[in-house]
Amino acid sequence: MTSPTSVEHVSPAPGGAPADGSWTDATVLAADHGLVFHSWSAQGRLPDFVVAGASGCRVWNHAGRTWLDFSSQLVNTNLGHQHPAVVAAIQEQAGLLATIAPATANATRAAAASKILAHAPAGFTKVFFTNGGADANENAIRMARVHTGRDKVVSAYRSYHGNTAAAVVATGDWRRVPNEYARGHVHAFGPYLYRSEFWATTQGEESARALEHLERVVQSEGAASIAAILLETVPGTAGVLVPPPGYLRGVRQIADRYGIVLILDEVMAGFGRTGSWFAFEDHDVVPDLVTFAKGVNSGYVPAGGVLICDAIARTFDDQVFPGGLTYSGHPLAMAAIVATITAMEDERVVENAARIGAEVIGPALRELAAANPLVGEVRGTGVFWAIELVADRGTREPVPPAVMARVRALCLERGLLPFTADNRVHVVPPCVITAQEAHEGLAILRSVLDDVAAQAPAM
Amino acid sequence: MTSPTSVEHVSPAPGGAPADGSWTDATVLAADHGLVFHSWSAQGRLPDFVVAGASGCRVWNHAGRTWLDFSSQLVNTNLGHQHPAVVAAIQEQAGLLATIAPATANATRAAAASKILAHAPAGFTKVFFTNGGADANENAIRMARVHTGRDKVVSAYRSYHGNTAAAVVATGDWRRVPNEYARGHVHAFGPYLYRSEFWATTQGEESARALEHLERVVQSEGAASIAAILLETVPGTAGVLVPPPGYLRGVRQIADRYGIVLILDEVMAGFGRTGSWFAFEDHDVVPDLVTFAKGVNSGYVPAGGVLICDAIARTFDDQVFPGGLTYSGHPLAMAAIVATITAMEDERVVENAARIGAEVIGPALRELAAANPLVGEVRGTGVFWAIELVADRGTREPVPPAVMARVRALCLERGLLPFTADNRVHVVPPCVITAQEAHEGLAILRSVLDDVAAQAPAM
Repeated sequence: MTSPTSVEHVSPAPGGAPADGSWTDATVLAADHGLVFHSWSAQGRLPDFVVAGASGCRVWNHAGRTWLDFSSQLVNTNLGHQHPAVVAAIQEQAGLLATIAPATANATRAAAASKILAHAPAGFTKVFFTNGGADANENAIRMARVHTGRDKVVSAYRSYHGNTAAAVVATGDWRRVPNEYARGHVHAFGPYLYRSEFWATTQGEESARALEHLERVVQSEGAASIAAILLETVPGTAGVLVPPPGYLRGVRQIADRYGIVLILDEVMAGFGRTGSWFAFEDHDVVPDLVTFAKGVNSGYVPAGGVLICDAIARTFDDQVFPGGLTYSGHPLAMAAIVATITAMEDERVVENAARIGAEVIGPALRELAAANPLVGEVRGTGVFWAIELVADRGTREPVPPAVMARVRALCLERGLLPFTADNRVHVVPPCVITAQEAHEGLAILRSVLDDVAAQAPAM
Repeated sequence: MTSPTSVEHVSPAPGGAPADGSWTDATVLAADHGLVFHSWSAQGRLPDFVVAGASGCRVWNHAGRTWLDFSSQLVNTNLGHQHPAVVAAIQEQAGLLATIAPATANATRAAAASKILAHAPAGFTKVFFTNGGADANENAIRMARVHTGRDKVVSAYRSYHGNTAAAVVATGDWRRVPNEYARGHVHAFGPYLYRSEFWATTQGEESARALEHLERVVQSEGAASIAAILLETVPGTAGVLVPPPGYLRGVRQIADRYGIVLILDEVMAGFGRTGSWFAFEDHDVVPDLVTFAKGVNSGYVPAGGVLICDAIARTFDDQVFPGGLTYSGHPLAMAAIVATITAMEDERVVENAARIGAEVIGPALRELAAANPLVGEVRGTGVFWAIELVADRGTREPVPPAVMARVRALCLERGLLPFTADNRVHVVPPCVITAQEAHEGLAILRSVLDDVAAQAPAM
């Protein structure tokens, strides 16, 4: 390829900050489009939305226009935006000690671990901290593999566990050798009655068949070669696929039958999203490792981690754990965790999420499903819902991307920041949302979907 | 495996915060050992060091004992601890907007990109932000692979590029498919005259032979199959292996000859560490992608990223970039970047690092090497140096781990926080260190190495 040809410094890049610091939405968009490379997108088309500030369930741009946030950004601001206690804790910790190496002991880090463990089931004794959900799953997989001495990991086709897959394999020193782990990943189908992979017609049938399928994959791969089964407790981006009753208990039994570690990914589902501290509580099951991020501190400071059961923690008492990262247990992130969990306890935020789901969102979405021909299915719990939009209720054919673009544009026009994925709108507001705010957002969503349904034949 | 058996909540974990919030070093250590799982270590043996607070080049424990920080933690606090302007910027941004989704446009994110690009060579036009160095390398590798349509990545055996290798391969949805990239990693030897892999006796010979070896590996793997050559500009944890003159220019020529993307990993070497904004400036070479983290904001908030040349950025104008993360361009991290780079410019921190290296650390370490039989070699630049400790200067046999443990313990005893790796002490203080502080730390280090050398036969 042709390379840049000199080390001469350029003057400040075009689109830099206005000299007087007075950003407008237009200057922010221009600077962003010129300088910032964005996740999961073609760079010519994004972003189209400026955020200048936010509070609670509202965000606003520089012109002062506000939107109700039904996305929690990337389903992470469970406590809403700019909770004053968490902001104050970050500010205080910033003044005390912003960063410290992971190999030291630090009070805020110990306090954060203690705060998280207080909400974990009995049997969990340690926390390993990471920067986010991807490296939480990385390290949980690593623990399971070293603990079992086995290689393979079974996860679901409809899943997302993070975007990392190469850095330690590119690494040349000894830290690569115990970690060449991109091998051995096997995928199976999970339960999803609306689009069943198992020709099932009831939740009971879907659950039983999904378990039979999982066990057949485990057996066919060679059960003794499998270190872990890794599942999102409630697959999130895949469509808020709440597992049918009994499914996760069945997975736990399969794991136990073959000596396999069960890792539940609670990056999106944990810390209040489903109306419980951990989503697995709703399913009467306890995993061996739990990965978390997002809601643990609402993303105010990047953080994630792994909750470790005692048996796995003890494996590493004398054996070196071959993983780590510079910002493991970062004090600023830890302070945000302590303050977030404290606020969630004090303000009964998890209970609020459960109530809003049961009393407001659930009934409104079921009513919508009954009335609007675009809606194929609604499903969810707490403040974690999906509306599946279909071109045809009989065939369940997803609406095309143009319809989703129209839904998103109309929502924004009418003051709602939505979360859309494939052919779905996910209703995932902060866990602190009030009934009034939920009604307001649901009314906008209904008006948008009604208008789009009315125009649908034209698209 | 035996799993925890109930979802019953336990009371706050043992070792939680003292009820009155008054931590002591003993209670912090006890809580940490009970609750926190640490990077790259057997959990029974670490940590032994409590940090309660820090400022500039000093850290202290709860008892009020201070240490001079010759480690910059994990070689990240280039600006020293608790720089007031960066602390203030974090506090201000926390009050304004802590977090926002990556797909939105935000002024602080654009300002951070602009600030970084202003120090980049001509030809770099965009920045992709990550949580740290590992995912910076992940995404640079991804860009190179999509851009070239090729698969393999050549890196060095003596290298570290981060600890991630599995999350997107465990992922089941479409985001896995373009990213099953742990395959195709190939390693070659880099230049390291003191322990040459090429039977070389001069730097010129080492450089020429290392290039010949690299080109032979490229040819033997099939040059047209290689997407990227990924190198730390100055391999850091591997031993501060400053490349000999001409080596990196030669690597650039090999990359150009075969249409290979050159990625330089500046996670540890960049942002002042070598006495330049980017270490590649010292070698008259310009890569196609630059990965960074650590020094970009001294680690005050977890952040990293990729500097992207225009040709690669344009590949993704219309094509979806198949990578991303929730906290890409996190406002709190971005505010810390803007403030850190501004402070580094205003206070001429990079120039200070260059001067301290040339006038204080370099001369002192060369004097030490001449006088102390334990020292096999010293090498470095700026505030990025390594002292290689050997049992025998003739055979260059590394000292055993017990000697390194003794060095570390004596340094701590005498008020110096050292960075040790394998048989080496890395002298890597913050870039803001004064001549007086550098002299103070070097005197402690000399006294420790003299005492250990005097006792060495007994060990």
